Amino acid sequence: MPKILRVNMTDRTATYEDVPERYKFLGGRGLTSTIVYDEVDPTCHPLGPNNKLVFAPGIVTGTNAPTSGRVSVGGKSPLTGGIKESNAGSSWVQAVAKLGIKAIIVEGFPKESGWWGLYITKDGVEFFPADEYAGRGLYEVYPQLFERFGKKAHICSIGVAGEMKMAMAGVCFNDNHGRPSRYSGRGGLGAVMGSKGLKFIVVDDTGAPGVEIANPDLFNQGRKKLLEALRQHDITKPKGGLNTYGTAILVNIINEAGGYPTRNFREGRFEGAAATSGEAIFENNKKRLGKELYNHACHPGCVIQCSNTYYDEKGNEIVSCIEYETTWALGANCGIDNLEAIGKLTWLCNDLGLDTIEAGGTIAVAMDAGLLSFGDWEGAIRLLDEEVRKGTPLGHIIGNGAAFTGKAFGWYRVPGVKGQNMPAYEPRAIKGIGITYAISTMGADHTSGYTIAPEILGVGGKVDQFDVNKAELARNFQYTTAFIDTTGHCLFIAFAILDIPSGFEGMVEECAGLLGADWTPDDAARIGKEIIDRELAFNRAAGFTKSDDRLPEFMKYEKLPPHNVVWDVPDEVLDAVFGE
Amino acid sequence: MPKILRVNMTDRTATYEDVPERYKFLGGRGLTSTIVYDEVDPTCHPLGPNNKLVFAPGIVTGTNAPTSGRVSVGGKSPLTGGIKESNAGSSWVQAVAKLGIKAIIVEGFPKESGWWGLYITKDGVEFFPADEYAGRGLYEVYPQLFERFGKKAHICSIGVAGEMKMAMAGVCFNDNHGRPSRYSGRGGLGAVMGSKGLKFIVVDDTGAPGVEIANPDLFNQGRKKLLEALRQHDITKPKGGLNTYGTAILVNIINEAGGYPTRNFREGRFEGAAATSGEAIFENNKKRLGKELYNHACHPGCVIQCSNTYYDEKGNEIVSCIEYETTWALGANCGIDNLEAIGKLTWLCNDLGLDTIEAGGTIAVAMDAGLLSFGDWEGAIRLLDEEVRKGTPLGHIIGNGAAFTGKAFGWYRVPGVKGQNMPAYEPRAIKGIGITYAISTMGADHTSGYTIAPEILGVGGKVDQFDVNKAELARNFQYTTAFIDTTGHCLFIAFAILDIPSGFEGMVEECAGLLGADWTPDDAARIGKEIIDRELAFNRAAGFTKSDDRLPEFMKYEKLPPHNVVWDVPDEVLDAVFGE
Repeated sequence: MPKILRVNMTDRTATYEDVPERYKFLGGRGLTSTIVYDEVDPTCHPLGPNNKLVFAPGIVTGTNAPTSGRVSVGGKSPLTGGIKESNAGSSWVQAVAKLGIKAIIVEGFPKESGWWGLYITKDGVEFFPADEYAGRGLYEVYPQLFERFGKKAHICSIGVAGEMKMAMAGVCFNDNHGRPSRYSGRGGLGAVMGSKGLKFIVVDDTGAPGVEIANPDLFNQGRKKLLEALRQHDITKPKGGLNTYGTAILVNIINEAGGYPTRNFREGRFEGAAATSGEAIFENNKKRLGKELYNHACHPGCVIQCSNTYYDEKGNEIVSCIEYETTWALGANCGIDNLEAIGKLTWLCNDLGLDTIEAGGTIAVAMDAGLLSFGDWEGAIRLLDEEVRKGTPLGHIIGNGAAFTGKAFGWYRVPGVKGQNMPAYEPRAIKGIGITYAISTMGADHTSGYTIAPEILGVGGKVDQFDVNKAELARNFQYTTAFIDTTGHCLFIAFAILDIPSGFEGMVEECAGLLGADWTPDDAARIGKEIIDRELAFNRAAGFTKSDDRLPEFMKYEKLPPHNVVWDVPDEVLDAVFGE
Repeated sequence: MPKILRVNMTDRTATYEDVPERYKFLGGRGLTSTIVYDEVDPTCHPLGPNNKLVFAPGIVTGTNAPTSGRVSVGGKSPLTGGIKESNAGSSWVQAVAKLGIKAIIVEGFPKESGWWGLYITKDGVEFFPADEYAGRGLYEVYPQLFERFGKKAHICSIGVAGEMKMAMAGVCFNDNHGRPSRYSGRGGLGAVMGSKGLKFIVVDDTGAPGVEIANPDLFNQGRKKLLEALRQHDITKPKGGLNTYGTAILVNIINEAGGYPTRNFREGRFEGAAATSGEAIFENNKKRLGKELYNHACHPGCVIQCSNTYYDEKGNEIVSCIEYETTWALGANCGIDNLEAIGKLTWLCNDLGLDTIEAGGTIAVAMDAGLLSFGDWEGAIRLLDEEVRKGTPLGHIIGNGAAFTGKAFGWYRVPGVKGQNMPAYEPRAIKGIGITYAISTMGADHTSGYTIAPEILGVGGKVDQFDVNKAELARNFQYTTAFIDTTGHCLFIAFAILDIPSGFEGMVEECAGLLGADWTPDDAARIGKEIIDRELAFNRAAGFTKSDDRLPEFMKYEKLPPHNVVWDVPDEVLDAVFGE
């Protein structure tokens, strides 16, 4: 039977508990958000003794369901002050799931300073002193941990940003090659881990029992349907869009639509887009390596395989991987059109333990406020590699995110919602994603309801990007996404299952088969709604109101080129998404 | 007829307007809060183009009503995000009132960088370039302005903190000796003035018509009653408590009560209290000057005269004046028991344009978070004189206040409400003032409802400091205070008029006489309620909820010595103060 592992950092104890009935049909975001709702006082200080950090594999994580190695990390966010779930793909969580761990709840507060690691195997849970790894870059530390704990270990960690409790600190997981590069980046959950004195959770699942499946036939039936859909769809199939160009295939598409935020959301089109696109990454690699390099998986069992590696002119690795959000945040949004510099900045974010979206957004705000010029990639590197790494006062400003940096310098053009900076879609030019940003329980977050699919990509239908009446669209995407985030699948399966109904069926059948539930596809939105309702309740109790479900004021009066549009979605549309 | 002066900083125009009927019976806080409520979008960015800064003399300001030279400054606060009124005593506002100006509304947004001054006389309003005065200390700048505009000028200004749009920047007014030392300090309104590019408002009331009085007999009858009460009461009479020891007479009293916050609200009693008290200031001065020095008035016509000047061993002035809040904020709260250092820190706050309460609270949080040791007054001086003055990154952190500094360094012990740090009364030990902090529209603010009077001083009755059932007490104090803040009287008249009913009558009769209103003493609370209702409505629209009406979490579980008490006022009591 799966168990919950409760880790208390006050007295450094770890105990297994039975899974309450209420949690049995949950996983991933559904489980982290429910545990946070049940156990965390919404008014607590995110970095004080009463916050908790929750890790949960998705429902089918750890099985051979395709593209299902996602971990949800949850808690009260130091960035937004609301509930937070941020998920990542990594073998780490597959190992956790195979050990029969349904969730890890980290709670309590250290009595004295000092860093600790947690080492989890089938034989038990141990704490180990981790001071020797603190204050150092993760690219240096990860190999040492693999040497110490063996090649079969899987690593979750925070970097120096989390140690310094910075609000853009992410929680880092190893990728398939042992790199510190898969992040539950958003919302500063790395700072929560840091506040608890927890530096690592190392897992070795050797001899683990594996994940129990209640109805293997139904599970397998679903798995095959989903697999087939993923293999068919142009975006997700082998040598398809994502496998060839990575998520950065979107750069030229969103730029063409005039919705590619440039220079801290001053323009919607970037003259350096092509040079910093997925196609550029692919073509540069081809030239430099002398062969076509298709992308790789971030965790075993992924069919989509969208993670790139970028190489320099000598054929040496710069970084893996440069996502769409990353090339944008550290590129166009900062006016930087130099892909090598973007690669270096991405590497720095991984090394320091930073969310790349918030990092880029923050550098852009700092540029806009006059600290650097747009395009100054050397200055941007300095901000991360010197200021943040050394924890200088400026590093503490930058490390706390874009809204914080804006406030530090009295700057009002901060493109965020609920304290979290916007990702790579301009809400003035693409209204549905703006609605998503505004009403998401997570702050400005494209992954909480990716309406870009129908608004720009023609996936799951096609709607006008400028149409403001998208309350229902946004609502449906939010609910379905909350369900997908609960299953343990990567959100990118959505491209296939939105267009191929049998794929959607397959996803639900996998979950129903694993749990022994009698779910049909119609249940997905219902379950997603229940999860979001809990998140909304948490946020209301934390003090959020409708006035937090708004885009920043400057977008209402500043016209965005090239379409010269302002944010004109009526508040009534925003309030209609989740009603009262 | 009085006029409203509207100053537009977009195109630098200034125009006089008639006073709308709705504003005719208002002044001071009642008028600034009503104008802000009427004209400012509660969701606007406090430092963006849509905020406004409003100055208003009280109803009887500019007349010979005793102790009535108060100016209210209002706007949306960059510190709290809510409505803000902060008042100060200065001849500046008496000159404004005598010129027939009911309010000054500063709006718009500069198109380019550069600093401007406004020069107001009976003959008109002029803008003058002020770049030459920017970036410099106010103690250097004020004499130059008096030289330029003459000894009859009165000066309102911001310091470098306001220029840098720091959230603890106050608006500064000259005292009776021309010093830059009277502050509308709280809530960062100096940053709003800075965001508009306005550095000074210089006023010369030579030849001004004076304030119109509708019913001089009634006005004079009230004036005499109030004057008599102020001259009788032990706290407010000549050579009484305030005139002898200044507001810092409270140090020993509050310390004895165990409610004197020490070392960032870790203890309720300070071993250095006596050495940093009003008595110590008086006795040190006596020794150093060879005579007893009674305090002086901050504006002409004050009967109470509570402003001290502190001298060094050579008889040279260190600073004027060290208030109770100041000696506490920069003393006990930082573990500093050196009165000379406190004087120097106070001078620095005046020179830079900082709120002393927020400045001390911020240094204390920085000390608690490990940046300095408690008691390190040299480090504290360095934070202000080097970091804030030069606008270093650390200066920008400190300059944005205690909550911001706590967040910068991941520190959870921040004793504030709505982003504004608490003043010098420990809410765990004195429950009524904690209720005031929690529910005030202004953030943690003792002046919005000074329940210390009955809780500790036995003024206006006597109640148990530990009794939690004080919703009604807090409500009554809030309403009455909002009225007093509207009249233009200093809040310190409250000591006398709470104990002497004819004084209270006198205050109301003065206002009724001036305006030609038919008010009785019973109207005071009604009018106060109407003002607070507008403030509450603004705050609700800005996004505040009941969860913002709470003290910080750590006070609920950390016991405060010497009484070993936690914050235990039920939320229901807090919510009952203003009801729904």
